[in-house]
Amino acid sequence: MKYFFVYAHPEPISLNGLLKDEAIQALTAAGHEVEISDLYAMKWKAVADGEDFPERDRATPLHYPSESGKAFKNGTQSVDVAEEQRKLLWADVVVFQFPLWWYGMPAILKGWVDRVYALGFAYGVGEHGGARWGDRFGEGVLEGRKAIVAVTVGGRMSHYGPRGVNGAIDDILWPVQHGILFYPGMTVLPPAVLYEVERSSEESVKAMVRVYVDRLLAAQTTEPIGYRSQNGGDYNDVQVLKPELSPDARGLAVHQHEPAFVSNTSLGTSGKYTPQHFAPTSRE
Amino acid sequence: MKYFFVYAHPEPISLNGLLKDEAIQALTAAGHEVEISDLYAMKWKAVADGEDFPERDRATPLHYPSESGKAFKNGTQSVDVAEEQRKLLWADVVVFQFPLWWYGMPAILKGWVDRVYALGFAYGVGEHGGARWGDRFGEGVLEGRKAIVAVTVGGRMSHYGPRGVNGAIDDILWPVQHGILFYPGMTVLPPAVLYEVERSSEESVKAMVRVYVDRLLAAQTTEPIGYRSQNGGDYNDVQVLKPELSPDARGLAVHQHEPAFVSNTSLGTSGKYTPQHFAPTSRE
Repeated sequence: MKYFFVYAHPEPISLNGLLKDEAIQALTAAGHEVEISDLYAMKWKAVADGEDFPERDRATPLHYPSESGKAFKNGTQSVDVAEEQRKLLWADVVVFQFPLWWYGMPAILKGWVDRVYALGFAYGVGEHGGARWGDRFGEGVLEGRKAIVAVTVGGRMSHYGPRGVNGAIDDILWPVQHGILFYPGMTVLPPAVLYEVERSSEESVKAMVRVYVDRLLAAQTTEPIGYRSQNGGDYNDVQVLKPELSPDARGLAVHQHEPAFVSNTSLGTSGKYTPQHFAPTSRE
Repeated sequence: MKYFFVYAHPEPISLNGLLKDEAIQALTAAGHEVEISDLYAMKWKAVADGEDFPERDRATPLHYPSESGKAFKNGTQSVDVAEEQRKLLWADVVVFQFPLWWYGMPAILKGWVDRVYALGFAYGVGEHGGARWGDRFGEGVLEGRKAIVAVTVGGRMSHYGPRGVNGAIDDILWPVQHGILFYPGMTVLPPAVLYEVERSSEESVKAMVRVYVDRLLAAQTTEPIGYRSQNGGDYNDVQVLKPELSPDARGLAVHQHEPAFVSNTSLGTSGKYTPQHFAPTSRE
């Protein structure tokens, strides 16, 4: 299979660097093909602005989505953007690997999304209006591909459980997993979430590498997160979930087939940390 | 009062530009003081990397949080970062205004957070260990300040309701409102969320300006989102919400005092849009 890593970490000699290197080595050894966009190493342009469209009419105010759509259609996109789109289309499995910074992606990775997800490529695809609102959430140009988030977290696992103070990790990752990866049609696999990475022993690091590599190697056979598809009959004509579905559920879990998926809900043992990666469990 | 706008939009001649200008004018006319960080106009450095610490030892691998903490403590931070911290400390009300791009902040604004929220300033403050895990979520260096998110959204309001396909807007904004604004101690006011901005009539724009300005002017008397404070007794000694609190609630709403706040839940009328901004309602 073809794995495409979108990777964001500023320091090669780091846990993230090690995880990435080990993952690529294991995948290659198993006969898979790998491409990587190491955003820091590439000095990826993070900020979406008018410079992305050198051919645009500078006499008119910039409307980023329109310019993005025009450039995509006319083949006048920045070379860097077009190249990332090519990699996405090439891949069978797209891996987003990053450290969780302020409950989200580092800016450089967010800027990869802002720029690469052009109008006509990742959104604005299909019919828009009335009962239908685009080929998205289950459909789209990246349909058929799998996506997996691999994220390192400084905080403790208990803080990210269903009632942990930070909010459940599934909910924190919702904008990335549902809003960015599922949106253009990718199937989203359970994330590899590695906690308390600032104080991990050598043994813990080995376990983390093992978990991450296992997740990647098993991509083809892993049960994905059961997000409901937008145009599959679960939502009404203004894209609101029909009342008879998940009637008793609350929160973002309503948008998953039951039983709704929860990642890594068990508590890390403070002070005596060993990574604990549990099978998905259900949440009501 | 002192209002500090952190503003991210690439085009001055835009709805966002208009909203920002009108808001600042109205606040100034009402006798308030205003500072603004117009991140695009400032060409804000979005990417957190080793260049943020010119004095660091380049022979050792970069560990961003440590360098950030050292620079903050020693007064060797980048001038741009220190200046933003000064504005945050100066302010009574911090306004985050941005277009919702891929269910989050534009990269330039995320990069503002990544860089300005230094270790020792926004996190790593207070006692860490066992039953206590920092002065955060209700405590912290920015305690006493109010924060408000003002966000323009291309999509329809129905898509962002409690069962809308994108996920509820409160849950999408959770990483920003709870994870970034509440974390260092700010009190978070209900957001000003403006939907379907791509097809708004002149009348709609006027209504949006009015809603936005009203929200800002009322900051001092508005009931904030009732996020539970971490160290106020609601969480146990591994920062998990005590079982007797919100026992029947699910999702991120458990972290709010009951009745949990929901913003703008009513549906926009497709095709015949008029902005509808409703009082907060409760959610179970």
